[in-house]
Amino acid sequence: MPQFLDTTSPDFEAAFTALLSAKREDSPDVDAIVAEIIADVRHRGDAAVIELTSKFDRLDLTPDTLAFTPKEIEQAAAQVSAEDRAALEFAAERIRAYHARQMPKDDQWTDESGATLGWRWSAVSAAGLYVPGGLASYPSSVLMNAIPAKVARVGRLAIAVPTPDGTVNPLVLLAAQISGVDEVYRIGGAQAIAALAYGTASIAPVDKITGPGNAFVAAAKRRVFGKVGIDMIAGPSEILVIADKDNDPDWIALDLLSQAEHDESAQSILITNDAAFGRAVAQAVEQRLTTLQRRAIAGPSWRDFGAIITVCDLEEAAQLSNRIAPEHLELCVADPVALSEKTIHAGAIFIGSYTPEAIGDYVGGPNHVLPTARSARFSSGLSVMDFLKRTTLSQMTPDALRAIGPSAERLAQSESLEAHGLSVRVRLDALNR
Amino acid sequence: MPQFLDTTSPDFEAAFTALLSAKREDSPDVDAIVAEIIADVRHRGDAAVIELTSKFDRLDLTPDTLAFTPKEIEQAAAQVSAEDRAALEFAAERIRAYHARQMPKDDQWTDESGATLGWRWSAVSAAGLYVPGGLASYPSSVLMNAIPAKVARVGRLAIAVPTPDGTVNPLVLLAAQISGVDEVYRIGGAQAIAALAYGTASIAPVDKITGPGNAFVAAAKRRVFGKVGIDMIAGPSEILVIADKDNDPDWIALDLLSQAEHDESAQSILITNDAAFGRAVAQAVEQRLTTLQRRAIAGPSWRDFGAIITVCDLEEAAQLSNRIAPEHLELCVADPVALSEKTIHAGAIFIGSYTPEAIGDYVGGPNHVLPTARSARFSSGLSVMDFLKRTTLSQMTPDALRAIGPSAERLAQSESLEAHGLSVRVRLDALNR
Repeated sequence: MPQFLDTTSPDFEAAFTALLSAKREDSPDVDAIVAEIIADVRHRGDAAVIELTSKFDRLDLTPDTLAFTPKEIEQAAAQVSAEDRAALEFAAERIRAYHARQMPKDDQWTDESGATLGWRWSAVSAAGLYVPGGLASYPSSVLMNAIPAKVARVGRLAIAVPTPDGTVNPLVLLAAQISGVDEVYRIGGAQAIAALAYGTASIAPVDKITGPGNAFVAAAKRRVFGKVGIDMIAGPSEILVIADKDNDPDWIALDLLSQAEHDESAQSILITNDAAFGRAVAQAVEQRLTTLQRRAIAGPSWRDFGAIITVCDLEEAAQLSNRIAPEHLELCVADPVALSEKTIHAGAIFIGSYTPEAIGDYVGGPNHVLPTARSARFSSGLSVMDFLKRTTLSQMTPDALRAIGPSAERLAQSESLEAHGLSVRVRLDALNR
Repeated sequence: MPQFLDTTSPDFEAAFTALLSAKREDSPDVDAIVAEIIADVRHRGDAAVIELTSKFDRLDLTPDTLAFTPKEIEQAAAQVSAEDRAALEFAAERIRAYHARQMPKDDQWTDESGATLGWRWSAVSAAGLYVPGGLASYPSSVLMNAIPAKVARVGRLAIAVPTPDGTVNPLVLLAAQISGVDEVYRIGGAQAIAALAYGTASIAPVDKITGPGNAFVAAAKRRVFGKVGIDMIAGPSEILVIADKDNDPDWIALDLLSQAEHDESAQSILITNDAAFGRAVAQAVEQRLTTLQRRAIAGPSWRDFGAIITVCDLEEAAQLSNRIAPEHLELCVADPVALSEKTIHAGAIFIGSYTPEAIGDYVGGPNHVLPTARSARFSSGLSVMDFLKRTTLSQMTPDALRAIGPSAERLAQSESLEAHGLSVRVRLDALNR
């Protein structure tokens, strides 16, 4: 059974704090190993990547077979059923439409001093997308990473996807094709991150790396951050559902299980203003767990990290939600829009009982790469912004320099930066001659 | 003398690549020490911070004196001359006006399926700004970090500024006051970053940490990334000036020196289409270096890392500029706007000969916290966006779920995520009953 908490209980605060700070992920300290792998790839390039792939993925590659050929991708894509292809294409189109609206605008204006100021957005030249292999190799994640990059007009898009023992999900390659990826490499782990960041003879370096991965991938992304940009360090998935009693307990149970089935470390929390409803949902979860295909994953997640919290009212629910800062927040209450205006810290909000979180994983349009582990307090889901950067622009006229230059000169002097001040002064003197 | 390169020389490519990859910063591997400091602060809180401040800054504090009192800030601010205060306030106002235009807009729309989609921006609740102590303690950096945070409506703003031997720059405290900072702590180094990220009895934790610092601060920021958000890992300053012969060599020399005087590891590069002009600038730099106050810093920077590159035309200049991806780019040519449209990768562009880079350090309006070490390829200067995060919103109607739900169900099945699919299916079945 999950934890049952009640805000009216005297030990609620202690129990809630413990829930917030529960260490869910068994993250081994792989930093030293990862540092060695990165150094090895920087030093020996392809040879290191090939050796490590043989060791970790039991797959023997050559520089010529590091990447899938267009024909291989074509053949894999052809294996996909028409129904799956149609669903992927439908999802891709909706994701594209949503992200197209995110494109930020350039701006430029001239102020009263005569200075023209502004900024300009531009895409990174090349991006690398990491796609996990094996169980968690999701075609939807390819779309969610690649499409924002394409919308941002990234010039070159490379995917790294490990293929343990040579197995690959054809849907992943189809998703890469649909979203316009340029290169797909059969590599994974820290060696893939190092190859994308530093480049090898066969793999040109990229400027930005996004996508989820295991502890090795996460540690490698942290290490190469600065040499390239990265998106975030993703942790196990989370959902918070706020629901009143006017819901079908089975719907809510399935929503909670849809995160729990991702990972034994996933966390599903229900907040309700009706204790009996909370118990009914708990029962419905148990019922579904008797037959769910992934019950061996969802069960431990729900038992170890699941929670049902009873609150006095929705105001209190919003306050707790903001402390949790959930990755996914589902609002199944009478006035979900009003509640959504109070839940400030969340990666994505699913409004109303007809918006199960799973819609957002695939076809809603918004991105499903979202901040975990309370990081919605300070960060956002993946977007076109991750593949863009902004250059600020300033242009002074002689009059503008006369108007604002003296203050710059004064501040430069106060900071003892003489050349800064002189670079303004020589121009002012020339203008005043 | 700096390096002289010429694109027509047969060894240009090798020399240019070497220039790009020159390791300018002697960054000691302080990671192990920093890990210990962070663990110590997490474990012992105030006591650890106080002990480390005594050790590194030779300053004995108590929990009560960790923060400057409002009265202490008031008294320090009162020492600042009226001229300096006026210049700071003028700068603050211009920075505020520029950053106010950066505030991104929320969006919401209903698509043809009946799904309402959108996003909402909100500020982080609390931000911590690191301000270096000693030589590099710049009041302008306080403005550049704090004002975007205030414009974004961050609820609580805390500064950490080490005060070695108890010395503090009154202008730094005045700048904190002008920009509306709530708390100023007399702490620095990794211990300050740890205190801001994890909190102590006297210092509440923040959600985001920005601001430059030494190797210890940089390593600590990298380590706490994920627990809190960080801005970037800043390296030594850089400027690239592209100038034709119709410039006063002394103006350009001072612009190059205004970065060189920051730091022995700073890098100043001139690209010109006129070799004789390049030599004239080199001469002017030498002349200025005979008297410049900070010649002991600017001289080594210019000799070790400075470069003058002669190109055939401005097209070639733009290409090299994009490979350098400079933090600051100054365009002193006949048509600087046209050239600026070709220089894609740069933190900030200063357009035309009347826009010395120093304007941007203080009063131009754009931020002076900018991506260094070629990271303008993938990242942007500090902005209000650093203090905001975006929550995506989705709301399905029954009709919308009927329209898009089946595709979500199909994709969930293809990824073997049964609960995802069922959470959609049970709703569709209810609607079809």
